[in-house]
Amino acid sequence: MLDGLRQKPVNSKRNFLQKLADRENPHARSFLVAFDREDGMIVRRLLLCVLVLTNGCVIRSAIGQAVDPDQAKQIFGVLPKIAENPQNPVTPEKIALGKSLYFERRLSKSSSISCNSCHDLGMAGADGLSTSLGYRWQLGSRNAPSVLNAALEFSSFWDGRAKDVEEQAKGPILNPKEMAATKELVVQRLKSIPAYVDAFHNAFPEEKDPVSFESTAKAIAAFERTLLTPSRFDQFIAGNPSALTEQERQGLNTFVAVGCTTCHNGVGVGGGRFQKFGLIHKPDWLKDLGRYEVTKNPADKYVFKVPSLRNVALTAPYFNDGSVWSLEEAVKTMAFAQLGRTLSDAEAKSIVSFLNTLSADPALVVSTPNLPPSSLSTPKPMP
Amino acid sequence: MLDGLRQKPVNSKRNFLQKLADRENPHARSFLVAFDREDGMIVRRLLLCVLVLTNGCVIRSAIGQAVDPDQAKQIFGVLPKIAENPQNPVTPEKIALGKSLYFERRLSKSSSISCNSCHDLGMAGADGLSTSLGYRWQLGSRNAPSVLNAALEFSSFWDGRAKDVEEQAKGPILNPKEMAATKELVVQRLKSIPAYVDAFHNAFPEEKDPVSFESTAKAIAAFERTLLTPSRFDQFIAGNPSALTEQERQGLNTFVAVGCTTCHNGVGVGGGRFQKFGLIHKPDWLKDLGRYEVTKNPADKYVFKVPSLRNVALTAPYFNDGSVWSLEEAVKTMAFAQLGRTLSDAEAKSIVSFLNTLSADPALVVSTPNLPPSSLSTPKPMP
Repeated sequence: MLDGLRQKPVNSKRNFLQKLADRENPHARSFLVAFDREDGMIVRRLLLCVLVLTNGCVIRSAIGQAVDPDQAKQIFGVLPKIAENPQNPVTPEKIALGKSLYFERRLSKSSSISCNSCHDLGMAGADGLSTSLGYRWQLGSRNAPSVLNAALEFSSFWDGRAKDVEEQAKGPILNPKEMAATKELVVQRLKSIPAYVDAFHNAFPEEKDPVSFESTAKAIAAFERTLLTPSRFDQFIAGNPSALTEQERQGLNTFVAVGCTTCHNGVGVGGGRFQKFGLIHKPDWLKDLGRYEVTKNPADKYVFKVPSLRNVALTAPYFNDGSVWSLEEAVKTMAFAQLGRTLSDAEAKSIVSFLNTLSADPALVVSTPNLPPSSLSTPKPMP
Repeated sequence: MLDGLRQKPVNSKRNFLQKLADRENPHARSFLVAFDREDGMIVRRLLLCVLVLTNGCVIRSAIGQAVDPDQAKQIFGVLPKIAENPQNPVTPEKIALGKSLYFERRLSKSSSISCNSCHDLGMAGADGLSTSLGYRWQLGSRNAPSVLNAALEFSSFWDGRAKDVEEQAKGPILNPKEMAATKELVVQRLKSIPAYVDAFHNAFPEEKDPVSFESTAKAIAAFERTLLTPSRFDQFIAGNPSALTEQERQGLNTFVAVGCTTCHNGVGVGGGRFQKFGLIHKPDWLKDLGRYEVTKNPADKYVFKVPSLRNVALTAPYFNDGSVWSLEEAVKTMAFAQLGRTLSDAEAKSIVSFLNTLSADPALVVSTPNLPPSSLSTPKPMP
């Protein structure tokens, strides 16, 4: 029945798209094509939009008024010191081991790629590439998200296929396009290095055979659970309004008023739920079926985990395919795709000024661990 | 005339080689082949050997007696705090900038390879590969030497083609098989990032146009000039005999007595001169013509810079092609190739126990620099 209903796109929206497209914005061009096609989905999308707005009604009540630290605390919560997991208690021994393993290239088949290769702690936990380079220079299909604060998220990977960072850590090590190792190779390499054997015994004293692929992932995850980055926004939430400038507070108000907090809420400013990309207007360039690839449930087509926006200003490029380099453009694209909102330049800039306050402050400083040398029985690099 | 003289190889040497070859040592097999071939070069090699021993006579006077800290100081000298270069004074601003640039992947065409990719400060300044992986997974032709203490050496690269680390730093950035950038790309990337522009102005206040390829190399080199690693052996040299165990002091005696210090002397325990690889017995597997590729002087065939042995126990694999993983085997191979000496297992082990004292102690700890984000005008990665 809905398919029978059609509605002309609002002219102002089309004009906005035309303007963006004139500026060679490839996504705007795609939207424009979709708009002009009038594919009968528009009303259905509007209904979905209403749903989103209804879900977000508590949050949206802040529209039109300044968001104070208490309200921000309600929406976002308080950043913990460590992202605890009762199933994998974070201990100093596990953190120390996990940190070494995080930088450990020998976890990869070629002995040349480590976690830090694609989630560089000197680059806010990402790699600045659209999609990462893996074994034998293979390009991945999705942008590497930042590891910073990743442990706070409700699931891992863009499609949420890992329930936590413990499970996530195993993925790239075994992925033939990434580190391309096997569980056996990892264990063989680590067992051949006496300093690692000792470190695993110290980190997992209760286990009979502590040098395992499982423990490797647990140790890396324990280290990642410490990689949380407080920012000026957390000072604001803690009750210090002057931690943000007037312009940044305005940006927060805009962020809330536009409806970004419908999805980007909680302590990660995102990372708390799944959402369909293109809820209102699916971008034509979006080919990645997202969570559908995991569940094969048609309702999960184009569904992705809502990314955390912490350190977003430091971790371009954006979106699942890393195709957009401008944060302002990304903000406009999301407002249009998810909320059907056509932001003015001023609104987008305002939101960006808020997003800048989510960058780690002070910057996270990690010392490079000194990795133990291989022994003669360590399986050789296989480049 | 010399070519007419021939001499049967000494049986004990042949037996030693046969034993090694039986243990599947590929280099021993090559030597064995060369030995059995009796190619008329043996006497000539012996004469060269005499030459080496004569050159080394002062050092060799220590044979048969214990080397005390004062003698060690004479042979090796005192490690400075920083490897100064009057042409590139080391300043805090230059170190800070150079450290960021050392970790900066955007100096490479693909924006995925930094200095630290092949000279990992968490891996004693090397990468643990036989030869390194560069742009589009190209394998280099020579093993990546450690960057630690490299600034102390009299020249850079295996073939000494760069006179210092300032000149060296430019090589891999521009090498199409390594970082594959151009000077223009490097400058364009750096000039597009405001935080770098500021940092270059601070580090090179006297220059009109400080963001240059030249300054990039100078800053990286200034950082590298701080990467010196004192070891227990330096405590010994400083007058503390008990910094080494009895076994390690024995190892030092053996190292000197065997003649290793003929080449491996000075503050880098090597890194002070060129030498032909295979001075007495050229390994059959050695194809790399070394310095000859630079000078085209036939006398430079198979000539390489004598590597520093600091941190050698942490930086396997060994030799120009990274083909040998065992330090003991490398020691035996060198003694035979350079000095015509057939070391017993005990002698080789003894030398290795001394070499172990050259590992950084305390380990060098470097904090990961926080790299500034790209701007919209930063040239994109080209993977």
